[in-house]
Amino acid sequence: MSTLRDLLADIGGPDAAAAAAARARLDTLTKPPGSLGRLEELAARLAAVRGGEPVVRRPVIFTFAADHGVVAEGVSAYPQSVTAQMVENFARGGAAVSVLARQAGARVVVADLGVAGSIAAGLSIVRRPIAAGTRNMTHGPAMTLAEATRAIETGAALAGDAIRDGADLLGTGDMGIGNTTAASAITAALTGEAPERVTGRGTGVDDATLARKVDAVSRALAVNRPRRTDALDVLQKVGGFEIAGLSGVILAGAALRVPVVLDGFIAGAAALVAVALAPAARHALFASHRSAEPGHGVVLRHLGLTPYLDLGMRLGEGTGAALFIHLARAAALIYAEMATFKSAGVDGPVG
Amino acid sequence: MSTLRDLLADIGGPDAAAAAAARARLDTLTKPPGSLGRLEELAARLAAVRGGEPVVRRPVIFTFAADHGVVAEGVSAYPQSVTAQMVENFARGGAAVSVLARQAGARVVVADLGVAGSIAAGLSIVRRPIAAGTRNMTHGPAMTLAEATRAIETGAALAGDAIRDGADLLGTGDMGIGNTTAASAITAALTGEAPERVTGRGTGVDDATLARKVDAVSRALAVNRPRRTDALDVLQKVGGFEIAGLSGVILAGAALRVPVVLDGFIAGAAALVAVALAPAARHALFASHRSAEPGHGVVLRHLGLTPYLDLGMRLGEGTGAALFIHLARAAALIYAEMATFKSAGVDGPVG
Repeated sequence: MSTLRDLLADIGGPDAAAAAAARARLDTLTKPPGSLGRLEELAARLAAVRGGEPVVRRPVIFTFAADHGVVAEGVSAYPQSVTAQMVENFARGGAAVSVLARQAGARVVVADLGVAGSIAAGLSIVRRPIAAGTRNMTHGPAMTLAEATRAIETGAALAGDAIRDGADLLGTGDMGIGNTTAASAITAALTGEAPERVTGRGTGVDDATLARKVDAVSRALAVNRPRRTDALDVLQKVGGFEIAGLSGVILAGAALRVPVVLDGFIAGAAALVAVALAPAARHALFASHRSAEPGHGVVLRHLGLTPYLDLGMRLGEGTGAALFIHLARAAALIYAEMATFKSAGVDGPVG
Repeated sequence: MSTLRDLLADIGGPDAAAAAAARARLDTLTKPPGSLGRLEELAARLAAVRGGEPVVRRPVIFTFAADHGVVAEGVSAYPQSVTAQMVENFARGGAAVSVLARQAGARVVVADLGVAGSIAAGLSIVRRPIAAGTRNMTHGPAMTLAEATRAIETGAALAGDAIRDGADLLGTGDMGIGNTTAASAITAALTGEAPERVTGRGTGVDDATLARKVDAVSRALAVNRPRRTDALDVLQKVGGFEIAGLSGVILAGAALRVPVVLDGFIAGAAALVAVALAPAARHALFASHRSAEPGHGVVLRHLGLTPYLDLGMRLGEGTGAALFIHLARAAALIYAEMATFKSAGVDGPVG
């Protein structure tokens, strides 16, 4: 297993020559140049990450689950038991991400990075819990620095395994009752935005619960004083195990030149951490959709990413990443399968 | 073959009970209510059109081709020969819509509604030309009223055949050098917008050609004086055969309660005509994407439709409709395949 230090050392920038070659080929295909808009840009970006042709044959979505001590502050509409129950639902194929990943031809790696409740035996779940949920961040650090590092390295190791098995696109997904509160705290800490600007209704909480969420984020920041310029410090103090694991997936994808599709707000918080640790990782990231969570807009602006879908979704799990796979595959297939003006005998522009 | 009059008589409104039943089921699934945003709205809308459960198993895209006499005014970047060449490219599977429809599991019905050039024999193309292209609308009507009616009925008949063969989602696509000029003229005539507000660069014309397009649209309207309240008059005077055929597909879908996916600007102009003829048809329409053509925004506002994708595409052919099929299928699969809170043993909201 690569250490975090090794991972960070391996991350390079985009391959500009591969992107230029992809754009040149796209301009030979039977369509006016640029007329497929962002689908063409997407093909070129995939090429730039891979350092070769855009290909989407074996997408894998990492849906990481963990619990959050901050739920003791009454920040969620759902009880903590739901995290473990939904992990079982993922493994049995009944969750939204299960359905959408199946449709998209993507494998889902469901991993327990730190679920508090017990999960039934005999299910296809990767069990790598760091602890039985984080501690309540309004009282002190959510985890230790060693735990944060271990969670990142665990996520990176799972991504590395999948890549060695042929994965050519990595999607990020999450499950964890209370995790929008952690994502809000990370976002506030790393961007400097006020808690009320980056805290939303998550699963759909009422006004009183939203006020408690904002208060919990504010207190977590006041108690822990995470250092804005030290992303590991932020992650350790106000993060979550599944979020840290996703930061690891992102860093592994960037290090191994495999494009990484971000889901929504939780994945965005993981990306803020990853990009703070390795700024060059940014080019490997694709924002699948714009979440209905207000903090996600802040994250996207900070990352400089424009999402491809805007459907008012706020479920997480990797559902936005799963939908985006169709667009990424479309871009790759356009590149690979369209006829050229020459091969099809189609006339070019007049004059 | 149904006459236009029969078609219009068969078009009814949405099935509110089916939509409510779909929404009720969606709220039992293992996700916070509404958390899949427009995907849930899409499932309910599909149910409302069908008068039953949302299903997307056999999508069919109608890519209709025809030529336009107005190209004599120098309104396109490409020669008229490209229309026939692209029809052959569709039939051979090398065009963008061929690739994207294949990916989406959709059949493409390629039909010649009035191509001027000759198309190679032996290809899988439906040959129903009304004439070898329209007449130059800057000198007089593009077609006769009888031709316009016949083109609509031809499109409707092809859609009816596909529906009898099991098609459960109809997509609209187009090919015709010069057809954005016709679509701009239809849009100006039916919405009252000025030609310069609804005329864009199409395949990517330069400033001089854009000025000629705006001028051609203005002259076509001045010479023909289409009646804004008479959509058949507008279609006949400044339309195109493929556009009229797509109006027929839309009317047939609405009459037979099969959802119709609009592609971009050309399909939008066809929808303006269809909805003017049968206002109740509107509920059966889904705007797949927002085209980069400026006139498309006017069309969408007029139809009251919000597109699902916004990727800066401006190719036509049915490419936006093909991409949208993944979203429609996702909505239908979510509805059909997700576990309920009860079946999965997942706890609901607290208290």
